[in-house]
Amino acid sequence: MNGNWRDNIRRVAPYVPGEQTMSPRAVKLNTNENPYPPAPEVLQVIRESNDEGLRKYPDPDCRQLIHALADYHGVKPSQVFVGVGSDDVLAMAFMTFFCGSQPVLFPDISYAFYEVWAEMLRIPYRKQPLDDGFRLKKEDYFQKNGGIVFPNPNAPTGLLEPVSAIEEIVAANPESVVIIDEAYIDFGGESVLSLVDKYDNLLVTRTYSKSRSLAGMRIGYAIGQEELISSMLDVRNSYNSYTMNQTALAAGTAALADESYFRETLSKIIRTREDAKERMRKLGFSAPVGGESFSNFLFLAHESVPAGLIFQKLREREIFVRYFNKPRIDNYLRITIGTPEQMEILYDNLREILKETEV
Amino acid sequence: MNGNWRDNIRRVAPYVPGEQTMSPRAVKLNTNENPYPPAPEVLQVIRESNDEGLRKYPDPDCRQLIHALADYHGVKPSQVFVGVGSDDVLAMAFMTFFCGSQPVLFPDISYAFYEVWAEMLRIPYRKQPLDDGFRLKKEDYFQKNGGIVFPNPNAPTGLLEPVSAIEEIVAANPESVVIIDEAYIDFGGESVLSLVDKYDNLLVTRTYSKSRSLAGMRIGYAIGQEELISSMLDVRNSYNSYTMNQTALAAGTAALADESYFRETLSKIIRTREDAKERMRKLGFSAPVGGESFSNFLFLAHESVPAGLIFQKLREREIFVRYFNKPRIDNYLRITIGTPEQMEILYDNLREILKETEV
Repeated sequence: MNGNWRDNIRRVAPYVPGEQTMSPRAVKLNTNENPYPPAPEVLQVIRESNDEGLRKYPDPDCRQLIHALADYHGVKPSQVFVGVGSDDVLAMAFMTFFCGSQPVLFPDISYAFYEVWAEMLRIPYRKQPLDDGFRLKKEDYFQKNGGIVFPNPNAPTGLLEPVSAIEEIVAANPESVVIIDEAYIDFGGESVLSLVDKYDNLLVTRTYSKSRSLAGMRIGYAIGQEELISSMLDVRNSYNSYTMNQTALAAGTAALADESYFRETLSKIIRTREDAKERMRKLGFSAPVGGESFSNFLFLAHESVPAGLIFQKLREREIFVRYFNKPRIDNYLRITIGTPEQMEILYDNLREILKETEV
Repeated sequence: MNGNWRDNIRRVAPYVPGEQTMSPRAVKLNTNENPYPPAPEVLQVIRESNDEGLRKYPDPDCRQLIHALADYHGVKPSQVFVGVGSDDVLAMAFMTFFCGSQPVLFPDISYAFYEVWAEMLRIPYRKQPLDDGFRLKKEDYFQKNGGIVFPNPNAPTGLLEPVSAIEEIVAANPESVVIIDEAYIDFGGESVLSLVDKYDNLLVTRTYSKSRSLAGMRIGYAIGQEELISSMLDVRNSYNSYTMNQTALAAGTAALADESYFRETLSKIIRTREDAKERMRKLGFSAPVGGESFSNFLFLAHESVPAGLIFQKLREREIFVRYFNKPRIDNYLRITIGTPEQMEILYDNLREILKETEV
């Protein structure tokens, strides 16, 4: 016959997420999770949502969650798409919008999954280099392309681009869909959601995994004009009619109800982050030139000790941070903002490690 | 520039699932859900699993669930893949294994999602006609192909193929992956799981949505040799690192623990099904010639009243069954086996409808 089944396999190089350690003693500052739990009311709703109704399929249209998100953001339900974390939402968006022959553009230093999706889906792409301070050069996106995607604030740098610069990029590209991945926007950045009504080619994605303390539930969403959303729904409904389970739908809805808990959690993280910037500076760490993190993590290099070594030594002490052994960023650590107590443990251990390595 | 963003969109014709009515009075026999709830212990575990740990990502390797499934089926954990319902598992399998230039083969009357996935993923395919009794002709699968997939028992017919016939197909196709979709196997069929050790090109998929009363949790899995599973994991990890949320992982594990509840539920459904065959026959319905359902649904035509009309009239009475307006099967209804009480309501209403239409 015609060969071997192995010839027909899709060969891919998967994304590698930060280590999900099971150790209860670990200080886990490597996947940008929220250090605070979801609101008690959310946990209560989740418990109550799990009843005999589980024998039935969840609502394939996710109406309750979509209506709650539409109300929250002041858009129409037909402008909201939900998925299994923003990774699922972004993967669906790549499948839906990036089917042209021109390359999709994204920054060379960015969320590593963009390249993985493009490779997996056989989408042509080009990585546009950030400048020496790891800032986006908007002119790099004023050229023929099959789509544009970048996070704002960027990951793993934490740097924020102003709405005006993003608007210039969106306006300059009526021929392609521009996806702004706002996974970290709640930590102090200004959202481009306000531009959605003006531009039919702008899609904004969000997640419950960072600011809303629900990484374990896997909830993400996208907002855009109705035509974008309905195209994504067609693709999702050609993939899996029911991606969101009953618990996720209930949890996602409930989490939007307690705005004061949400705001309080954000304030605490932002306060700890600002303090961490100063504390880490005193330990000899610095951010990229002119680089201020607007996210729930810091991106820092040490003045004398290589990042890879610090990463390894922290790991031996069960303190997990993220290290990317990649060109241009291989001397940086990405450190999630934890509770003040977790951060003190980090500072103490860093002090010891830096002392050790000096000897 | 180069045109319009609409030119780069993936155009698809999505799968349309059975209506998820919200009406509490509805008798819902249209999506092959289990009429009995999950075991009380499962609901308890789900409630307890939702704690402050939700702030963290779930285990991307789904170790707890995968180990439980491996134990249950007597295979190695490296032979198990889990996903968001068997739809997610099958979609991942299509993406992973069906990347050749030869057509993928599946029956003309079968799970309608196969064609949707093939179209969406631009996979060449050919539909092989079942015989006049809606049986699979195994010879149709002894030819060049890029992969093979069919359900056993088949949907929407409920007909079962013997393990020997499937083994012939698997053995005749060392050059392609053969996927046997066993969504309904627990309702009385003999599984081909026993062949997995012998054939490196056989993948068997299962779901918690039918026999395990957990459609609302979205859990499915596949079993095959390690090389097949690791290829699927690479693709999944190139799509979304965490597809299973914390609740689904806990529920899926807990559901395997109560074998006696599971067996009892199955017995009740099988008993109701056998009774329903007789009751429906008396009302003038019949299955395809020689066709016996081994699933949790019946596939029936009426001797005088068109299926589309019965479907519509049942729907007006808030009794939901499934009707496919497609060639060869447009005079059949697919009716899920409900509780004995639900079935009595069905029989009563059918009696009235058939009387009406005779007048």
